[in-house]
Amino acid sequence: MSLNESIRVKLKESASKVDVFMEEILKPRRPKSLYDAANYIIDAGGKRLRPYLVLRSCKLVGGDEDDAVPFAAALEMLHNFTLIHDDIMDNDDLRRGAPTVHAKWGLPIAIASGDLLFAKVYEAMTNALVELPCDRIKACIERVTEATLAICEGQVLDVSFPHISDVSEEDYYLMVGEKTAALFKACSEVGAIVGGGSKNKIEQLGSYGWNAGIAFQIVDDYLGVTSDEETLGKPVGSDLREGKKTLIIIHALEHASPKEREIIDRVLGVKNADPGDIQAAHDILRRIGSLGYSLEAARRYGEEAKKSLDNFPDSDAKRGLLELVDYFMERTY
Amino acid sequence: MSLNESIRVKLKESASKVDVFMEEILKPRRPKSLYDAANYIIDAGGKRLRPYLVLRSCKLVGGDEDDAVPFAAALEMLHNFTLIHDDIMDNDDLRRGAPTVHAKWGLPIAIASGDLLFAKVYEAMTNALVELPCDRIKACIERVTEATLAICEGQVLDVSFPHISDVSEEDYYLMVGEKTAALFKACSEVGAIVGGGSKNKIEQLGSYGWNAGIAFQIVDDYLGVTSDEETLGKPVGSDLREGKKTLIIIHALEHASPKEREIIDRVLGVKNADPGDIQAAHDILRRIGSLGYSLEAARRYGEEAKKSLDNFPDSDAKRGLLELVDYFMERTY
Repeated sequence: MSLNESIRVKLKESASKVDVFMEEILKPRRPKSLYDAANYIIDAGGKRLRPYLVLRSCKLVGGDEDDAVPFAAALEMLHNFTLIHDDIMDNDDLRRGAPTVHAKWGLPIAIASGDLLFAKVYEAMTNALVELPCDRIKACIERVTEATLAICEGQVLDVSFPHISDVSEEDYYLMVGEKTAALFKACSEVGAIVGGGSKNKIEQLGSYGWNAGIAFQIVDDYLGVTSDEETLGKPVGSDLREGKKTLIIIHALEHASPKEREIIDRVLGVKNADPGDIQAAHDILRRIGSLGYSLEAARRYGEEAKKSLDNFPDSDAKRGLLELVDYFMERTY
Repeated sequence: MSLNESIRVKLKESASKVDVFMEEILKPRRPKSLYDAANYIIDAGGKRLRPYLVLRSCKLVGGDEDDAVPFAAALEMLHNFTLIHDDIMDNDDLRRGAPTVHAKWGLPIAIASGDLLFAKVYEAMTNALVELPCDRIKACIERVTEATLAICEGQVLDVSFPHISDVSEEDYYLMVGEKTAALFKACSEVGAIVGGGSKNKIEQLGSYGWNAGIAFQIVDDYLGVTSDEETLGKPVGSDLREGKKTLIIIHALEHASPKEREIIDRVLGVKNADPGDIQAAHDILRRIGSLGYSLEAARRYGEEAKKSLDNFPDSDAKRGLLELVDYFMERTY
């Protein structure tokens, strides 16, 4: 079995338990449209990376994965809540090739269904089926809340960056740290807390999650430039057209010659940029070395994530987390 | 001192402690615009009814009001989070005579600042300064989460009612129960929980909050028809123009003659209705008895709220809660 197949099987395994829990907690009440919208994005798929992180982290510290299922569901719902609201803020009508919630249900229901999922995050954590010590539940709620605050901040930074010309690498890392890595970190920490891990182990898993999250986002930005429309689920060059300040773009703007810069400027933040110009800009990003530069950065963060687990003895759970990082990197092949 | 003055002094007293807490927890981090937007709506005023409910309910069961301050702040932030998102959903550009958050900061920051306030609700509850038993904190989180789910449901019902012709009184009460009363109920329950009240007392205070909330919303709808622009903070007839299905309108549609119905239909849900036609419709609402009918209903709920406190001996806290209901009703004089 290739790495890709192996991790897919594992992701599916943990997803199935978590999906059953989500189906139950999101059973429609009145008004049905509100719940339909919330279930629509949950059912639209996604790889369930975050539940996987929660369950494996719980297992890694010696806990019972089943105890962590409500928390894994909570973090997946949190992720989906942010997707709904982000798609509104970014004015994106497509996600994974399908209409976004606001494109399908309109703005009011989209906003409310995001809010509903957010509230369900806390319902899931406080209504855990298994008796957990109260202070663990409280600690989980604290981590999840911190992560949400970070996501709000990171998302506003993300939508503001296209309007700022001198976004630095430091700004980028601050933004993806908040927008993406904070949630990955919360996932592995919450898993470790539910499993009764020591303060040290919670920290090590937090470091794993944080670094894995940064690696994941850099790879995601990379794929935004290199993938075809079918893989992307939206038109090629969307990130460029939206003027997103990815690590690739920040590197390119710093190292482009005046002539190259001109070609990038022809598409960066230009909503209706010509596909030929997009292709030309992509070629330049490759030529300047910005694509390779960002891959190298992702690899560094991936290695850092793996190193954070050095103190854990070999186990299924540990291998599962290490493989996840390799899987992120393999997506770029 | 008139009732009006007396309750205003009391509201201010409890508000000042809660405002200090909110100022601290909402101290700007990066990006500043996100925090500015959240603070803008908090600073825009509002009567701080919900914190008052929390603090007085805590006191009534023998607790220390200071213990309840973070929870009172949490419920006020929850209220403000829903205001920001509701104003977007209702497409309202004015609130209390000032631009709404989305009118001032744009959609992305408005959505994110609502989400931020929502997350701060939980931060406030878990970071209470005073050592509270963990199970009390968890119980408060459960009540607040339930109320939030209800608010999401109620708000979607509210925005869907203008498009439904046969909204019944039962529908109306379901909607205001979720949209308004659930939060009032949560406020008095949370206060009672923090104060260490018995199950019985928490229930009685919950009943008080629920009924007071319904009374408050009916009065609010009543004032939406009878107030002038300055009091309303938005143009006279806004509720009619938006096609809101208030108790007044439901009663009127049921009892209007064909001729009266025609005059109501000329403005109900008609965005650019003529001010003269609005006045004519208001006259009819009064003549059919719909205004009086709704006031009578508010009074009934107000009395029910007060009756819920019958088992509590006389005290400052009890008088404070009873006066609050009288204050709602006095607003209609």
